[in-house]
Amino acid sequence: MDLVIRGGMVIIGENAFRADIGIEGERIVAIAARLEARRTLDATDKLVLPGAIDPHVHMSLTAGPLRLTSSDDFATGSIAAACGGTTTLLDFTDPPDTNRGQSLRDALTARRTLADAQVAVDYGLHITLTDARDATLAEIPDLIAAGCPTFKLYMAYEGLRLDDGQLWAILDALARVGGLPIVHCENHHVIVRLAARYRAAGQTAPRYHALARPAIMEGEATARLIALARLADCPAYIVHVSCREALAAVRAARASGQRIYGETCPHYLTLTAHEYDRPGFESAKYVMSPPLRTAADQEALWHALAAGDLQVVATDHCPFFYEEQKEHGRDDFTLIPGGIPGVETRLALIYHHGVNQGRLSPAQWVVACCTNPARLFGLWPQKGQLGIDSDADIVIFDPQREVTLHAASLHQRVDYTPYEGQTVRGYPVHVLSRGELIVEDGRFVGQAGRGRFLPRGTPLLPPV
Amino acid sequence: MDLVIRGGMVIIGENAFRADIGIEGERIVAIAARLEARRTLDATDKLVLPGAIDPHVHMSLTAGPLRLTSSDDFATGSIAAACGGTTTLLDFTDPPDTNRGQSLRDALTARRTLADAQVAVDYGLHITLTDARDATLAEIPDLIAAGCPTFKLYMAYEGLRLDDGQLWAILDALARVGGLPIVHCENHHVIVRLAARYRAAGQTAPRYHALARPAIMEGEATARLIALARLADCPAYIVHVSCREALAAVRAARASGQRIYGETCPHYLTLTAHEYDRPGFESAKYVMSPPLRTAADQEALWHALAAGDLQVVATDHCPFFYEEQKEHGRDDFTLIPGGIPGVETRLALIYHHGVNQGRLSPAQWVVACCTNPARLFGLWPQKGQLGIDSDADIVIFDPQREVTLHAASLHQRVDYTPYEGQTVRGYPVHVLSRGELIVEDGRFVGQAGRGRFLPRGTPLLPPV
Amino acid sequence: MDLVIRGGMVIIGENAFRADIGIEGERIVAIAARLEARRTLDATDKLVLPGAIDPHVHMSLTAGPLRLTSSDDFATGSIAAACGGTTTLLDFTDPPDTNRGQSLRDALTARRTLADAQVAVDYGLHITLTDARDATLAEIPDLIAAGCPTFKLYMAYEGLRLDDGQLWAILDALARVGGLPIVHCENHHVIVRLAARYRAAGQTAPRYHALARPAIMEGEATARLIALARLADCPAYIVHVSCREALAAVRAARASGQRIYGETCPHYLTLTAHEYDRPGFESAKYVMSPPLRTAADQEALWHALAAGDLQVVATDHCPFFYEEQKEHGRDDFTLIPGGIPGVETRLALIYHHGVNQGRLSPAQWVVACCTNPARLFGLWPQKGQLGIDSDADIVIFDPQREVTLHAASLHQRVDYTPYEGQTVRGYPVHVLSRGELIVEDGRFVGQAGRGRFLPRGTPLLPPV
Amino acid sequence: MDLVIRGGMVIIGENAFRADIGIEGERIVAIAARLEARRTLDATDKLVLPGAIDPHVHMSLTAGPLRLTSSDDFATGSIAAACGGTTTLLDFTDPPDTNRGQSLRDALTARRTLADAQVAVDYGLHITLTDARDATLAEIPDLIAAGCPTFKLYMAYEGLRLDDGQLWAILDALARVGGLPIVHCENHHVIVRLAARYRAAGQTAPRYHALARPAIMEGEATARLIALARLADCPAYIVHVSCREALAAVRAARASGQRIYGETCPHYLTLTAHEYDRPGFESAKYVMSPPLRTAADQEALWHALAAGDLQVVATDHCPFFYEEQKEHGRDDFTLIPGGIPGVETRLALIYHHGVNQGRLSPAQWVVACCTNPARLFGLWPQKGQLGIDSDADIVIFDPQREVTLHAASLHQRVDYTPYEGQTVRGYPVHVLSRGELIVEDGRFVGQAGRGRFLPRGTPLLPPV
Repeated sequence: MDLVIRGGMVIIGENAFRADIGIEGERIVAIAARLEARRTLDATDKLVLPGAIDPHVHMSLTAGPLRLTSSDDFATGSIAAACGGTTTLLDFTDPPDTNRGQSLRDALTARRTLADAQVAVDYGLHITLTDARDATLAEIPDLIAAGCPTFKLYMAYEGLRLDDGQLWAILDALARVGGLPIVHCENHHVIVRLAARYRAAGQTAPRYHALARPAIMEGEATARLIALARLADCPAYIVHVSCREALAAVRAARASGQRIYGETCPHYLTLTAHEYDRPGFESAKYVMSPPLRTAADQEALWHALAAGDLQVVATDHCPFFYEEQKEHGRDDFTLIPGGIPGVETRLALIYHHGVNQGRLSPAQWVVACCTNPARLFGLWPQKGQLGIDSDADIVIFDPQREVTLHAASLHQRVDYTPYEGQTVRGYPVHVLSRGELIVEDGRFVGQAGRGRFLPRGTPLLPPV
Repeated sequence: MDLVIRGGMVIIGENAFRADIGIEGERIVAIAARLEARRTLDATDKLVLPGAIDPHVHMSLTAGPLRLTSSDDFATGSIAAACGGTTTLLDFTDPPDTNRGQSLRDALTARRTLADAQVAVDYGLHITLTDARDATLAEIPDLIAAGCPTFKLYMAYEGLRLDDGQLWAILDALARVGGLPIVHCENHHVIVRLAARYRAAGQTAPRYHALARPAIMEGEATARLIALARLADCPAYIVHVSCREALAAVRAARASGQRIYGETCPHYLTLTAHEYDRPGFESAKYVMSPPLRTAADQEALWHALAAGDLQVVATDHCPFFYEEQKEHGRDDFTLIPGGIPGVETRLALIYHHGVNQGRLSPAQWVVACCTNPARLFGLWPQKGQLGIDSDADIVIFDPQREVTLHAASLHQRVDYTPYEGQTVRGYPVHVLSRGELIVEDGRFVGQAGRGRFLPRGTPLLPPV
Repeated sequence: MDLVIRGGMVIIGENAFRADIGIEGERIVAIAARLEARRTLDATDKLVLPGAIDPHVHMSLTAGPLRLTSSDDFATGSIAAACGGTTTLLDFTDPPDTNRGQSLRDALTARRTLADAQVAVDYGLHITLTDARDATLAEIPDLIAAGCPTFKLYMAYEGLRLDDGQLWAILDALARVGGLPIVHCENHHVIVRLAARYRAAGQTAPRYHALARPAIMEGEATARLIALARLADCPAYIVHVSCREALAAVRAARASGQRIYGETCPHYLTLTAHEYDRPGFESAKYVMSPPLRTAADQEALWHALAAGDLQVVATDHCPFFYEEQKEHGRDDFTLIPGGIPGVETRLALIYHHGVNQGRLSPAQWVVACCTNPARLFGLWPQKGQLGIDSDADIVIFDPQREVTLHAASLHQRVDYTPYEGQTVRGYPVHVLSRGELIVEDGRFVGQAGRGRFLPRGTPLLPPV
Repeated sequence: MDLVIRGGMVIIGENAFRADIGIEGERIVAIAARLEARRTLDATDKLVLPGAIDPHVHMSLTAGPLRLTSSDDFATGSIAAACGGTTTLLDFTDPPDTNRGQSLRDALTARRTLADAQVAVDYGLHITLTDARDATLAEIPDLIAAGCPTFKLYMAYEGLRLDDGQLWAILDALARVGGLPIVHCENHHVIVRLAARYRAAGQTAPRYHALARPAIMEGEATARLIALARLADCPAYIVHVSCREALAAVRAARASGQRIYGETCPHYLTLTAHEYDRPGFESAKYVMSPPLRTAADQEALWHALAAGDLQVVATDHCPFFYEEQKEHGRDDFTLIPGGIPGVETRLALIYHHGVNQGRLSPAQWVVACCTNPARLFGLWPQKGQLGIDSDADIVIFDPQREVTLHAASLHQRVDYTPYEGQTVRGYPVHVLSRGELIVEDGRFVGQAGRGRFLPRGTPLLPPV
């Protein structure tokens, strides 16, 4: 045996027990009371969990009216992920440039080329669909066969958004071949009108970004998408649910037996719209879509995770430098690049605010951050569980370790963190990816480019 | 190592993988790709799961107006359980005879004396409370300390039932010390009136048992208990949920964040009230409380299990001989002893009708039959998981094996099965209890009396 | 023509127009642009509405552990009613003394004898049922034939309350002959337990009366009654709905098409539990059942009236002198006679807080106070409408008149009003009963004993 | 006095009584036990109600891809209306031709010019809005001042439909000045996609019209409009609600206190999608939008009317000849002009299927067909009530008269009726408009062009 993780509290789904974990090469080969190996990693008084999976990140994403690029590339972003206990990332293809005859497959190849050279942990790609032409729909089975069974659809953002007819056509096509849509739900036309009105009135501060994207209209779009999915008899996954209105739509659908799944993000669980009251341009740091909501929304999201109405916590990691990038929107909130960093802090934040506060059990934390993303996105059983013959992606997490979050000490390539100065109890110490120790006592010791593209299988959607 | 279970598909919560399981003495010591031991049990192409836990059985229960005793004693009943893959039983104390100065502790001692001599698998006892006197409430902490943290409350049955004031007082007392109430919810006074009216009208056939216990009144009582629990700020567990009305009450409570948990039973999931249309007295075989409901109720119960609104499948095993015991009610349905056999067939029925039909994932099946009962009733981590250092209670389940159910070939001590002639695909083959092979290829090879009383710890109630 | 009411704004259901109303003898004979008669009553700038109907009053009610009698008798109470614009009262029979062989019919006769001699406006009687014996149920058709088609059932109060089996049996009997149950919904056993506990802990102040009767338990009892009514396929009317929990049960039933109707009272619409924070024994003035609730409950009740989920505003008028009667409970809240005065102030309070605040339209005010009580309780078309040949029970209401409420200037026979010092805009000026001017410019000018018993017909229950 | 209607059962809101009605000139001047006049119209054993108001008709409407014109003009359509008991029509302006610089006011003038010359009963006009340009929004106050306070918005139909941003901008503008939006809710893009797919597959029969407009997508659009109205804090009226999905959205909004009002139509209340199973092209007669739904939807709509969740029954009268107009779509359902006749048969159909079946009380029938349209659309108190000084628009309705409906004997200018051969019990006999007898014993005796344009006032929206 190559390596033993000794004496930790192993968390496997709803189960937990003290045990050694034995690794040979890239795989887990044993879980036992006592194992011996060439090398030993002590995990006494630590939690041992499967490497976390972040199914929603945007590295080197070029977007928005100014075509700015998110500040983490696949190298820096995946290193930060690893330091936070995340050993698998799911990013997105860019929309193909159809003017130049680019196919979805071309877009996949291009994105893989970029990522493969840089990525420090394993990764997969969702396919971004921005039209519903016959040629586009015809490519879907091929992409599923290529290991990309999940498709990102946008209801907002000019250039990305699909109208309801397109959405239905895509859902209908996906339903026939077992693809899973993952959908950004906000009402595009209303947002555009509201933003224009605020701008016209000289209301250009970052807070107007949030006011232009009201919770009612996220709830509306979520309910609309669910209606379309019902019509198409297609399951669907709602990204970044932020508010009670959207939750209510998800919950009602599930109660009626519709296969709707949903994620929320650490920022919606731990921050509120009060951040937009910060003086000056500071609150630009909190500009993302959907925007931050209320404390009541926050509690509802925690409840939904515990009750199983939401299944996943992902980050929507999409950092932009405050100094040079967010800055572009100083006089016009519509020019602030939207997105915040988060890939590194997810596991710790959810443990601290969730488990330590009694809102989630340790098992619910692991299920939301590791197991459910693996199952829903076709990575299981290779990833997401501490199982024999599964990849030895493992986090050794110290539940007592206190860490104060500072942009300066985090590994994300961005000049701020939304959680600056916040102290959390519970933090990853060591991280293994395919049997290799890539984070040792909080320090990244792997190398960029070692990560592999993951061809994914069929999404495993639990009966509802 | 004493024993290896070789090459099965190990199911641990939401996780599953092919592995060997190693056992030393009474405990699991290793889960690994390849283990060696003195003895090997082949599990190729089999599922390997934790021994199932049936948290609701009634062995040698004397009840009803005729004081008849259920036909399985702890020996026959626990052997049947074992043959069906159930390695832990939770039975109930009798109400203390307060006229003779008997305390709850005396009732516990008496029941343990009976059971210890006979039981073939490990078992625990719920405490039956039939009054709310100060002296009774004062015993509660002592009983929790003695390993009995769960308390059975009845809203129906003369002699057992508690009025709403008593229920509240008990819930209030339990909330203060962390005891968990498990409650039979039906409206006593209405049932008594309806039964009397049917009898007075000469409507004495078994079907009137069902008509006297309408779903509306199970729903009512469930909602009432939930209101009382809310007032007392006490969690509660609803036994044998049979209908949509009761489910709706459970679901609404959980959606509001109230810690309400519930079980249903295989008969509610697989049979309907059409059984009461059987000719002659035959339908007496299906007399239990609550009675069987409709096909629509059935589908709702499956959905609730998948969605997590119900957490447990238990059996309420309480057999009476058709020939000599049910017979007493031939001319008066109120004299039919209520209850049906089921402890032996649960795992197979839920697999067949649940997993094979796509209503439950294999993980949901294991969670409902094994893991959740262990957690909710304070048996975890000793029971209910395949964990290192957990008891080696293990079922080797052949998902392809077809078995036709016949009373004659089952081990339950009763002259019928409600599932006579039904063929299921998927059945337990070998069963271990604390490392001992007690069922080998379907034959019981252990001995009565080998089981142990389980002092239980604090119920682990997942956040809602 | 004997009398013309000239030039008022006549309100007839959803309709309103300026017109003269002509009266001959006891009846309305004309509504027209211009009428002439021997006598004229000017109504310029006034609202003209049907005499209000208070379907829930308790004159000379002897009740409670101390057998105290409510302070208004039929004379004083009906005079106060008239001064407030109420020209029809529905009171209740006492429970028959079955020990002395008294029948329900005897109880009706006794109550009529008492009332006939005193009452200044017309009145009817609900029959109070306190058992479900065969002999009692057998009397029901006879009482309906005698003009009493409505039956009061209590779920609380020792000596009055019925258990669920009795309730069902009565509902079943009423459903067969078209009687309407009107039900007091609170959970008796829980109230008794809570009250005993507070008392035992020395918590004897009036506020504990309210704490012993929690909203959750009114909601529970309301839901229970509705379940019983559904089982019996019987419509039901819920008296004095005070809280959101009870409202939710009513609304859900109605949404499912069940014929459930409900009333609330002015005190629940205008006062809150903050009254129980008054110093000393003062808050005993606000002891009634159910007790006052929260501001959020208040808003929900207004909304329910506007939306039609509740149909009636009644008073549950049941006054006791603060000085000599409430006083008995100074050291023990369970000895405070429960009930407050209100028969005189209903129309004005609902106009002021409802219509003036935009919570109700004028039509909704008239429907809730006049028309719906007439229809639901079998008084229509004789009462409750300004129709040709209907009784000339008419209120001339000045929407601009400001009146400050003082016990001293009100006509109720009791030494306080819960609304002391409150100023309302809008007040009755003149009141006619069967064509006779009994209140002239706020002064009672009729005489006690002139009122008549009203044999009532079939309740008109609007489809749901 | 000019005219007396003698001895009918007068229905005024929830009130009803036998009386004479006296008329002078165009107005009602008296309602009394006995009136004398120059002329008498006997109404013994008849119901007397306010002239019905149909707030949703399309006379001479040119629409659809083929630009066909609905077959009733204002003359024939209003005569048919009168014969059916409807004395007020609300029709719509055409969208202004903005290319030619036409304003909304111009469109109003044009439509008035057309109607004034022809119309046989009084009428008003809703303003159709098809864009949200600043110039358009700026005209709104002027149009309200001109007596048109209600604005038709379409979520479907190319050329008419508004996107969500436009809808919000209009709702926001209306909220500021008290205009009421009345909205056609269906999901445009999905309908277009579905229709195209059916056509492409050669599925061109009329039934595919219905399949292309699923109930789920009417529910979706209704919920979306309600969300937009909530955001804009604007009340809204939903036209032609046809299904449970849309109803659920309306009911949920109202339960939360949002001022949402709704209408349904006789065809949704009395016909089902089974009509699309008719052989050949026959079912083209039932092509309208939304299409006919299921029997379960039908019952839900009746329940919603009774419960007050819907307030109005209108017809959406929009007839096209089967022979020459519907015919155009024989090979392509998208070319069938959508719409059915109904203005003549509403009162009788709702009485027959509603009141005779016990689904509605007579008062609820009158409120839905006469009173509520008057109040919601600013016609009250001139229209919609039998009030002193109200217009003498009166229907004398024989509740016993049996009429078998035939296109040949109806007055609508179209070659079929959807109710051909159906017999109804209850039918209008005489009809007065402003004191003039225009229908005598079922025969139209007035003249085209006598009707007047009605400048309407503020919509009276009942509190919710």
